Amino acid sequence: MALNLSKESSVLAFDTNPVACDTAAQGGIELADSVQHIGASDCHVIFTMLPSCSVVDSVMQSLLESIPESSLSRVMVDCSTVSPSTSRRWHDTWKSQGHAMLDAPVSGGVKGATDGTLTFMVGCDHDDALQRAQPFLNNMGQRVVPCGGPGAGAATKLCNNLALAAQMIGICEAMNLGEALDVDPVVLAEVINTSTAKCWSSEVSNPHPAVAAAKAASGVDSPASRDYEGGFGVALMLKDLGLAVASAQDAGVALPMTATSKELYKMTELRGAGHKDFGYMLQFLKGK
Amino acid sequence: MALNLSKESSVLAFDTNPVACDTAAQGGIELADSVQHIGASDCHVIFTMLPSCSVVDSVMQSLLESIPESSLSRVMVDCSTVSPSTSRRWHDTWKSQGHAMLDAPVSGGVKGATDGTLTFMVGCDHDDALQRAQPFLNNMGQRVVPCGGPGAGAATKLCNNLALAAQMIGICEAMNLGEALDVDPVVLAEVINTSTAKCWSSEVSNPHPAVAAAKAASGVDSPASRDYEGGFGVALMLKDLGLAVASAQDAGVALPMTATSKELYKMTELRGAGHKDFGYMLQFLKGK
Amino acid sequence: MALNLSKESSVLAFDTNPVACDTAAQGGIELADSVQHIGASDCHVIFTMLPSCSVVDSVMQSLLESIPESSLSRVMVDCSTVSPSTSRRWHDTWKSQGHAMLDAPVSGGVKGATDGTLTFMVGCDHDDALQRAQPFLNNMGQRVVPCGGPGAGAATKLCNNLALAAQMIGICEAMNLGEALDVDPVVLAEVINTSTAKCWSSEVSNPHPAVAAAKAASGVDSPASRDYEGGFGVALMLKDLGLAVASAQDAGVALPMTATSKELYKMTELRGAGHKDFGYMLQFLKGK
Amino acid sequence: MALNLSKESSVLAFDTNPVACDTAAQGGIELADSVQHIGASDCHVIFTMLPSCSVVDSVMQSLLESIPESSLSRVMVDCSTVSPSTSRRWHDTWKSQGHAMLDAPVSGGVKGATDGTLTFMVGCDHDDALQRAQPFLNNMGQRVVPCGGPGAGAATKLCNNLALAAQMIGICEAMNLGEALDVDPVVLAEVINTSTAKCWSSEVSNPHPAVAAAKAASGVDSPASRDYEGGFGVALMLKDLGLAVASAQDAGVALPMTATSKELYKMTELRGAGHKDFGYMLQFLKGK
Repeated sequence: MALNLSKESSVLAFDTNPVACDTAAQGGIELADSVQHIGASDCHVIFTMLPSCSVVDSVMQSLLESIPESSLSRVMVDCSTVSPSTSRRWHDTWKSQGHAMLDAPVSGGVKGATDGTLTFMVGCDHDDALQRAQPFLNNMGQRVVPCGGPGAGAATKLCNNLALAAQMIGICEAMNLGEALDVDPVVLAEVINTSTAKCWSSEVSNPHPAVAAAKAASGVDSPASRDYEGGFGVALMLKDLGLAVASAQDAGVALPMTATSKELYKMTELRGAGHKDFGYMLQFLKGK
Repeated sequence: MALNLSKESSVLAFDTNPVACDTAAQGGIELADSVQHIGASDCHVIFTMLPSCSVVDSVMQSLLESIPESSLSRVMVDCSTVSPSTSRRWHDTWKSQGHAMLDAPVSGGVKGATDGTLTFMVGCDHDDALQRAQPFLNNMGQRVVPCGGPGAGAATKLCNNLALAAQMIGICEAMNLGEALDVDPVVLAEVINTSTAKCWSSEVSNPHPAVAAAKAASGVDSPASRDYEGGFGVALMLKDLGLAVASAQDAGVALPMTATSKELYKMTELRGAGHKDFGYMLQFLKGK
Repeated sequence: MALNLSKESSVLAFDTNPVACDTAAQGGIELADSVQHIGASDCHVIFTMLPSCSVVDSVMQSLLESIPESSLSRVMVDCSTVSPSTSRRWHDTWKSQGHAMLDAPVSGGVKGATDGTLTFMVGCDHDDALQRAQPFLNNMGQRVVPCGGPGAGAATKLCNNLALAAQMIGICEAMNLGEALDVDPVVLAEVINTSTAKCWSSEVSNPHPAVAAAKAASGVDSPASRDYEGGFGVALMLKDLGLAVASAQDAGVALPMTATSKELYKMTELRGAGHKDFGYMLQFLKGK
Repeated sequence: MALNLSKESSVLAFDTNPVACDTAAQGGIELADSVQHIGASDCHVIFTMLPSCSVVDSVMQSLLESIPESSLSRVMVDCSTVSPSTSRRWHDTWKSQGHAMLDAPVSGGVKGATDGTLTFMVGCDHDDALQRAQPFLNNMGQRVVPCGGPGAGAATKLCNNLALAAQMIGICEAMNLGEALDVDPVVLAEVINTSTAKCWSSEVSNPHPAVAAAKAASGVDSPASRDYEGGFGVALMLKDLGLAVASAQDAGVALPMTATSKELYKMTELRGAGHKDFGYMLQFLKGK
């Protein structure tokens, strides 16, 4: 993402991972010594992409404290997947300090980040902030989708992903039962893909190795054709499901199916498959 | 279905429902006095469409007993949604008597039946039987999909529908949580429909009344725009989920998500919503 | 059971398992050549203990056909765990032939059967039949509990066992979470056993090996102290949960927790633990 | 609790609820103007009983800031039901300031609080602190159970209550299925109460109105005999299940059954039954 950004803008970057720093430096990106260094710089749009709500809290706090008081208004763009309540809290904080914020979690995976084809789901309460960030978002992604006010980007991502989990598990159960009842998996996938249960998980990333192999034979790779490597990981899906369940609890909403999805992915992760694509659920159902 | 069939063939029909019989008679279809009357006739392809495994057993037994011993080989086409094991048992029975069978459950709903646009998912073990039935199936439907051997049509339908249930409930939970987190339902549906969680239940038959109303305003009706009337009923989905769970038990397969779907639809039905479209799940989640 | 019965009565026995036959013969029990042999004999109370509804159907049919028409009224006592609907169907059949039936499934396990300390849960519609069978039941068990009309014994056993499954899984989750939160399992079990969550699964058969080892040290063995061997097996519990779910479906009842229990035990069985005590659920939760 | 405490000790009390303050004042208890007033006083053992983690955080912070720096070591006894991680954080904070803490959530309900028969589940890391608090705990409760280090009291309570929820729902499903299969609820409860599924929820607080009425007739009241009023509320159980699920997520533990329990109680609460005893689950299962 930083490399794509740096094609048209001057970028100052920081990461605690030395490999990421090396890659950035080799791409000609200036490196900061610390988060505070970035806050103290004159960057007027600051992007964050962090692994959890508590890391977001800590980095945001460091930025807040390092931005000089007399500074011009900054736009903070948090691309982390966090709970809408965490987002909202930081929207309020930045606003009270005269700055603006976007919550802008992404979909598209590592491939989308590298190719600059990410989708940003954006929550914010002033169009002005979005306009200031938009050119930079366009450098990194293909689509920028305004979802509503503060936290709406975070909420939208969680909602999409909880539905995606239910779809993948449903397709895994269908492929598994069909196979046990002697239906050819490739035929079953074809029928589903022309019927009411067609979805991304049945078509683009079908979890059955035989279906994935047939697709790979015609030149289209997917995780199930490479032992579930390199897709959307079980641990990442589990994280999003955890945020969805916690958000639902705060919002007073029942999520009975998502609660089941979350426990199934937790049990899968406990069997050492946290890094496998989330289509690995099919193998969990088979007893792995 | 009988009316579409009668456009190009001579049809002899029986139903225990007098309304269905009247409609058929007004359409110029000859009515039989009983199931046995049909068995004793010279109909060489016999279609059945019945509500449960036990009714299939009873009607098939009547047919079996009423077909004259010296009769030419008949093709029995059972369009009922039943368990694959029930289908297989009747395939074996008919075969042992010198006849052939197709299990050919349909998708497409009442509208598909009326318009002749049904999809038939077919299981059989001789292509010859399918060829004999095909012209008649073509009169009633748009697509005839060979799914495999005896019971494969039944199995495929159950697999599609259990995945469909998971998708609908997942979309209901997403729409419900999104709304509670202040995301506009119409915006949320738009984002999902351009993302990985897009499916028939998010796009063609979105369960949120506001989304359905927006679609209805542009001329495309769906159940959620008419108080969940006239779609795929909760009770019908529940029946299919019950068959899927029972088939999985016989086949030694775990279906943890489908078990959850089934209980959720049962709880919905217990609240008097058996006849509502299965997107009514959104209302159940809201406390209705 | 047959050996206990033979202490005070003359017994004619049949089993398809040669080991069971040898044991019986060595105990001085006369062996029948077949089920039909028993039907044709003058045994006036006939006990059956069979593994599934379909085996019950087949053995009952053989008995029915082999009992001479002019025979005095027999009392059929079916100790198998089957669905209440299977029981009721056979109650009706036997009654229509002038005989009587009890459904009398047992609890107490292999140990109870050997020691003659079983509990029989009895369904029947004439006290007379129960009175005729009672002396024999007393030879094999400690308690005979009348539960109601035909099928009530079967229903009661399923109800007890579905509650038992929920209790065991609940205790497994409690022990597992407590341990992860640094509470000593022995202390946790002690607190639970003096609190509202005390039950047989927390006290008599606590699934945590450390708790079971502490009990074993004071002379009381339980499955978790011997690697979950020799208790109430996962596969047997799964069978009962399958019967409960099927009975609930017929009766129009929602069983959301039992559906979850059933899937969890199915997933445990798929990992090769069908023969382990049902407290093995704790190990499944830990990732085994 | 304060009234029982005041029988043998001098008490200074604060509550935001004026009714509670009046009751305390009428019992001769001195009232504080604020939380800070209590911190600034010379109370050497301070009890808190608060409704949520965030209120605990806020009140503890106020106490921390109002206790004079030169103060003698205090013992903070938090009787709130909170997450073990919240407890642990405050243990650390108080320790770093030279004070001690016990997490000491209670069981026994409103009746136990009034009668002084509560059970305290205590987590702490110095026996000294427990000794200092013990006489006061003895005034308010019947049992003081040391569960382990900081947070162990909180953890133990959550573990007991998640097992309790599974037991109650299991008993509700058993009573509901039994009734649908024509087993008399009173007989079914009797059989369960002499079998492996016996527990507090089947015996002391059986959720079936007919069973509760039979007990009430012999002089023992329970919530199901008074329309589920006055027991352990659905909303309170739901709170504990939410804490358990969140704690499990932090601890990396799967809780598939408790996740189901939580969603079922949430759906019950959404139907307006938050204040009903948690045995009301039986009515939810029946469609209410």
